Amino acid sequence: MKKSIVGASRAAVAALALLCLLVSTAQAQAAADPLPSWNEGPAKQAIIKFVAATTTEGSPQFVSPGARFATFDQDGTTWVEHPIYTQVVFALDRVVVLAPKHPEWKTTEPFKSVIADDREAMAKFTTKDLEKIVFATHTGMTTSEFSAIVKDWIAKARDPRWHRLFTDLVYQPMLEVMQYLRANGYKTYIVTGGGQDFVRTYAEQTYGIPPEQIIGSALEAEFSYNDAGNAILMRPPKLLVNNNFSGKPEDIYLFIGRHPQAAFGNSTGDREMLEYTQAGGKGALMMLVLHDDPTREYAYGPAEGLPASNVGTFTQALYDEAKARGWNVISMKKDWNRIFSFDK
Amino acid sequence: MKKSIVGASRAAVAALALLCLLVSTAQAQAAADPLPSWNEGPAKQAIIKFVAATTTEGSPQFVSPGARFATFDQDGTTWVEHPIYTQVVFALDRVVVLAPKHPEWKTTEPFKSVIADDREAMAKFTTKDLEKIVFATHTGMTTSEFSAIVKDWIAKARDPRWHRLFTDLVYQPMLEVMQYLRANGYKTYIVTGGGQDFVRTYAEQTYGIPPEQIIGSALEAEFSYNDAGNAILMRPPKLLVNNNFSGKPEDIYLFIGRHPQAAFGNSTGDREMLEYTQAGGKGALMMLVLHDDPTREYAYGPAEGLPASNVGTFTQALYDEAKARGWNVISMKKDWNRIFSFDK
Repeated sequence: MKKSIVGASRAAVAALALLCLLVSTAQAQAAADPLPSWNEGPAKQAIIKFVAATTTEGSPQFVSPGARFATFDQDGTTWVEHPIYTQVVFALDRVVVLAPKHPEWKTTEPFKSVIADDREAMAKFTTKDLEKIVFATHTGMTTSEFSAIVKDWIAKARDPRWHRLFTDLVYQPMLEVMQYLRANGYKTYIVTGGGQDFVRTYAEQTYGIPPEQIIGSALEAEFSYNDAGNAILMRPPKLLVNNNFSGKPEDIYLFIGRHPQAAFGNSTGDREMLEYTQAGGKGALMMLVLHDDPTREYAYGPAEGLPASNVGTFTQALYDEAKARGWNVISMKKDWNRIFSFDK
Repeated sequence: MKKSIVGASRAAVAALALLCLLVSTAQAQAAADPLPSWNEGPAKQAIIKFVAATTTEGSPQFVSPGARFATFDQDGTTWVEHPIYTQVVFALDRVVVLAPKHPEWKTTEPFKSVIADDREAMAKFTTKDLEKIVFATHTGMTTSEFSAIVKDWIAKARDPRWHRLFTDLVYQPMLEVMQYLRANGYKTYIVTGGGQDFVRTYAEQTYGIPPEQIIGSALEAEFSYNDAGNAILMRPPKLLVNNNFSGKPEDIYLFIGRHPQAAFGNSTGDREMLEYTQAGGKGALMMLVLHDDPTREYAYGPAEGLPASNVGTFTQALYDEAKARGWNVISMKKDWNRIFSFDK
């Protein structure tokens, strides 16, 4: 009798221990960190509190599922933009590829400097120079042809520092934010000053964001027919949408027709998008990525004493506005324990 | 013994009968008609076959769920457009409302004719006249203010024939198509030559289509600040997007970045949208609504001997193109057993 009671007690204790283990594992899984690349801190807390406040029934800031929108700048916010925007690298590569068809480029700026790989001259390119390069490399073909050219390039081109595909240089912490927001009913959009069609070719695979959720600068598309009489769209050298600065909220309104509840940027070109998001109502989340980590990525501002930069300019005025308006400034150095998926 | 056997047999028969009834009801429910307002015929069959072909795994025309898009013209396709477009009625009503603030309108065309309710003169209005009226009534306020004005008007204004709210004059068969497509993973869009913001105010409630899925003609939105320093968007008298004719596929490309698999229209302004849809690949569905029912709605073409009309023109050339290209022409008279939800 004694042996079986002891045996029964041991079995009961083992069963209870197993039960506790299962419960605590379940609890741990239920509380699993949705943002593992983020260090504990005000930035991470702001994101988590935002999601809780806008998705919990009864919360004064509850947003119904069909009306949840989050917008992300790309260059410098979701992927690397130094030393120069990826799309500019593409355009310069295309000049070299197309040069044999344009012998006159050898003696015409800005093409001459690109073909000669004259870095000093290229560093001084004006907006007009870049516009000429973009029009020469992004127009005069159908929309399908252009997408195929980009797809081909983005699958092969590598950056000069890590020698990775550019689509590998996305910020793991921001991918986690996108996945976390989507898991909570948010529609995630890219809102880029760069080319809408350029980004559309890789965004679904890279960010999980489909073409209809990419807002960017866009050429006019010209309807026409091919030789078989089938409808095509050509790309003429005419800009339809300039999606920078105040263009961002204007285009968000065109595409979405509402204020987003969350917006993420990193430079002066994102200021109006964040202001427009905040104007949508209490509980909105506005965040700016500050590049303050020269070891793991790049350091540039010039806010907070960082080196000045023409690419992804984050001025002290923008920093001060962020603080005054209650926006969150993300320090790559302090807030991210991992920047790239390939970081150890 | 005999009585109980008979009793048991009767009970068994009753149970079997009930079982058969349940089974057949279940089968009937499973096969419930998703398009009850449509009569059996080639148009209805085309829709059902399209959905089966594009949503059945293993079908050569299978389209993955994230890539399913259907676009609907509005005026004359999803709601009534005769005697004149609803948005024009809105604009003319606004002229009368705003007239006290514009004493000069009493002696200036086209406002003079509108204020005097001169039907003969209004019937002769040119595009330039309408543009002046639209700019005078749709601009100079914020986007929020404009939406509130439309919301207020659309909740009260009634049509001259059925004396219904305009949002009641939607075509029940087309609502069923939208619901059926959405139930099968399709994103439904309105693609209208009318105003995007006008349609956005009621489309979610009326069609189940949210603001980010409304493509239409659009003014530029101008970013600014109100007196409290908060971001606003103003409506200047500048057209950004003209969403008619070739503008439709160009704007579908801007907003969606892909060919839709299904497109529905009713006039020459929808031709390029249907051509662009067909160019997306085999298995696409292109449908045009022909207004051939003067008793229950309006008859106009001039295709197939119907009376000519400047509003929702369906030419013989468009009809012939539809037949040549394998598009489906919907006869309101033959294909729809109910037009409006309030039809008996």
